[in-house]
Amino acid sequence: MSDDLKTEFRDRIEDVRTGMLEVDGRFVPMSHSVVEDDPHLWFITAKDTPMAKAAAQGVAARYLICSDGKGIYADIEGDMVVSDDREKLDQVWGVVASSWFEDGKQDPDLQLVRYTPKSAEVWVTEGGAVGFLYQVAKAKVTGEKPDLGSHGSVTFA
Amino acid sequence: MSDDLKTEFRDRIEDVRTGMLEVDGRFVPMSHSVVEDDPHLWFITAKDTPMAKAAAQGVAARYLICSDGKGIYADIEGDMVVSDDREKLDQVWGVVASSWFEDGKQDPDLQLVRYTPKSAEVWVTEGGAVGFLYQVAKAKVTGEKPDLGSHGSVTFA
Repeated sequence: MSDDLKTEFRDRIEDVRTGMLEVDGRFVPMSHSVVEDDPHLWFITAKDTPMAKAAAQGVAARYLICSDGKGIYADIEGDMVVSDDREKLDQVWGVVASSWFEDGKQDPDLQLVRYTPKSAEVWVTEGGAVGFLYQVAKAKVTGEKPDLGSHGSVTFA
Repeated sequence: MSDDLKTEFRDRIEDVRTGMLEVDGRFVPMSHSVVEDDPHLWFITAKDTPMAKAAAQGVAARYLICSDGKGIYADIEGDMVVSDDREKLDQVWGVVASSWFEDGKQDPDLQLVRYTPKSAEVWVTEGGAVGFLYQVAKAKVTGEKPDLGSHGSVTFA
């Protein structure tokens, strides 16, 4: 089940645009990108933001995903560092950034950040989120398995 | 601006079905309900869940909302307690619960929880979330105001 859940996690976060990243004790909305054959999540931010400064030191950071639309919820523990990988930036750029980054890839304020998930608690829903969440709560009381989706912990290599 | 943002916050969270609630150091997906002329958020859970046990003691808890669809992101600090208010349960029930709570309002496992927001950091977007989030990051660097939405801190009475 853990491998299935890991696959579901990976598939679904590709379609979710944003999560909440913990930086200096605050949770701030961030947009993540996923690139094929690459286990990381990628963020683009501006230099000198609290997030870029934290990543410059290479820190552990929590990232939360909560999407009714895609039926995925996750509490992720991972590490983040700044990256100057131009090739990776090209890939990430192709996915999301080109339409909104005003001055393009050469913008001197741009900072690519690499996030490496280490472990996560994941909930994947089929159908309505609300019913699923109640089923999970109920399962904890009755010992039954929730029958509308999956929930568990995964670790990443 | 803080009052405008508070109004936007209130209006938009009514349309968002789920968030992530911090319980015993974990963030777990929960479905909240908002009732007219009532400043609280309401949760329905099963008795004996970690959340119900924490609420039974009356604890401070963080609740995060992250919705691209509704253009609202929030990092909320508040207090939660269990509630045996049958009238309130009737109201909350009418909003969300009736379709999925198997044994109805008389289910002995059911536990109503009242969450009181104390303060929040709120982001409200118009149009695409990704562009807005970059504008916010960029604004911190350049000192300009983001022009696609609002961001700020609000406190609740």
